[in-house]
Amino acid sequence: MLTLHHAWASTCSQKVRLCLAEKGLSYAERLLDLRRFEQLSPAFLALNPDGMVPVLEHERLVLTESTVINDYLDDRFPDPPLRPADPAGRARVGMWNRLVDEIASPAIKAPSFARNLRPGLRALDDAALDAALARMPDPMVARRWRRAAREGFATEELAYAHDRLRLVLGRVEAAMARGPWLAGAAFTLADINMAPFILRIEGFEEYDLARDWPRCRVWLDALRARPAFPAARIVAQGTTTPKEVPAPCA
Amino acid sequence: MLTLHHAWASTCSQKVRLCLAEKGLSYAERLLDLRRFEQLSPAFLALNPDGMVPVLEHERLVLTESTVINDYLDDRFPDPPLRPADPAGRARVGMWNRLVDEIASPAIKAPSFARNLRPGLRALDDAALDAALARMPDPMVARRWRRAAREGFATEELAYAHDRLRLVLGRVEAAMARGPWLAGAAFTLADINMAPFILRIEGFEEYDLARDWPRCRVWLDALRARPAFPAARIVAQGTTTPKEVPAPCA
Repeated sequence: MLTLHHAWASTCSQKVRLCLAEKGLSYAERLLDLRRFEQLSPAFLALNPDGMVPVLEHERLVLTESTVINDYLDDRFPDPPLRPADPAGRARVGMWNRLVDEIASPAIKAPSFARNLRPGLRALDDAALDAALARMPDPMVARRWRRAAREGFATEELAYAHDRLRLVLGRVEAAMARGPWLAGAAFTLADINMAPFILRIEGFEEYDLARDWPRCRVWLDALRARPAFPAARIVAQGTTTPKEVPAPCA
Repeated sequence: MLTLHHAWASTCSQKVRLCLAEKGLSYAERLLDLRRFEQLSPAFLALNPDGMVPVLEHERLVLTESTVINDYLDDRFPDPPLRPADPAGRARVGMWNRLVDEIASPAIKAPSFARNLRPGLRALDDAALDAALARMPDPMVARRWRRAAREGFATEELAYAHDRLRLVLGRVEAAMARGPWLAGAAFTLADINMAPFILRIEGFEEYDLARDWPRCRVWLDALRARPAFPAARIVAQGTTTPKEVPAPCA
């Protein structure tokens, strides 16, 4: 039995839901509302001391990093395979994963935060905000959230985040000059792990993929057209309750 | 033919040298002096646009991320294996890799910089420093280096880095209550990828491993006692020329 602890709008949760959907795996789910800081509850911190979604439980294993979770799912449920069999192909997927984890994932936070989390945080008074942030395992992240909740992100910080997102879009665009998928001929975890970030960017009004990154848009459309895509339930930012999204996969 | 582009004191280069040593692989090497910004030369940026060591060239592949490089070496040269065969064991190694890449590696930079790079940077005048930093691909990193070169890191920033390093030491210490290696019974890439960071920390005067993290010290001593360890040529910070270190492995 697979159990996924996740949040609808979390890009890293979406990575794992996409992988599970492509594998056709069913799973139990535990939903967390990040706006209510459910990822910082004592029960959840006991499961993942880093206080982050997603978490996958399977047999006696508790896995806490979405890239590791997807590699595990591909090792444990190899049909259909989501990584090439040859070492060079696997390394190409690995390098895409690093681009996602090192650049796309940190850079998506500030523009996502401004749209998704800040409205809720602004409604909290200082005592309630402090109580929640005091449970954050990383004091630097807590400080950043506190400042962002009260003042928003600095213009410079947002500009840097968008520069980094454009770097990612540029690399996807360049890879799609070859294509048809990021790591070459086969659809792989490189596509899955990147997808939630480009889908999120597509929703930002600063970006026009069809105009400025047309091959990236072709890739995104191909990804969206895959039969498994609806089962991943990629929802718009701001969606927080299961009632707002389609029924869980069977 | 394997060709490794690396720097002696770079922790990520050390990860790959340790892996190559454990595999008994010979390789050509191209040494870069990070104090002279050789990683930002046009020729090197053409190889790795991120301007970072290590880079491994093999056949027609150019790999630029040390964790990906070590996975590739283990896939391509599987004897001796450096990851468990079972999916759960591989996932355990993957989670250690994430701890290294997400926490240990960013946190080691400020205390390493203060000891290793700042003395050289302080000797540069503003024009020479600006010329070097203008070639840095990530403007935020360039800004951080410039400030650090002139003013050093803020006390708060250094304190945070040390907090994060202590978190890493705590996780190694906890894992070694089981042991004998980080991911369990077998010596794996988890040990190799973590080793350069703990070896670096051991050299910082703020830490006394034997007193405060005794199991961590036992692990480090076991690692150092491995027959392959000397071939990895882990040198003290500040070593910059091949003359200062033992001959390359055959």
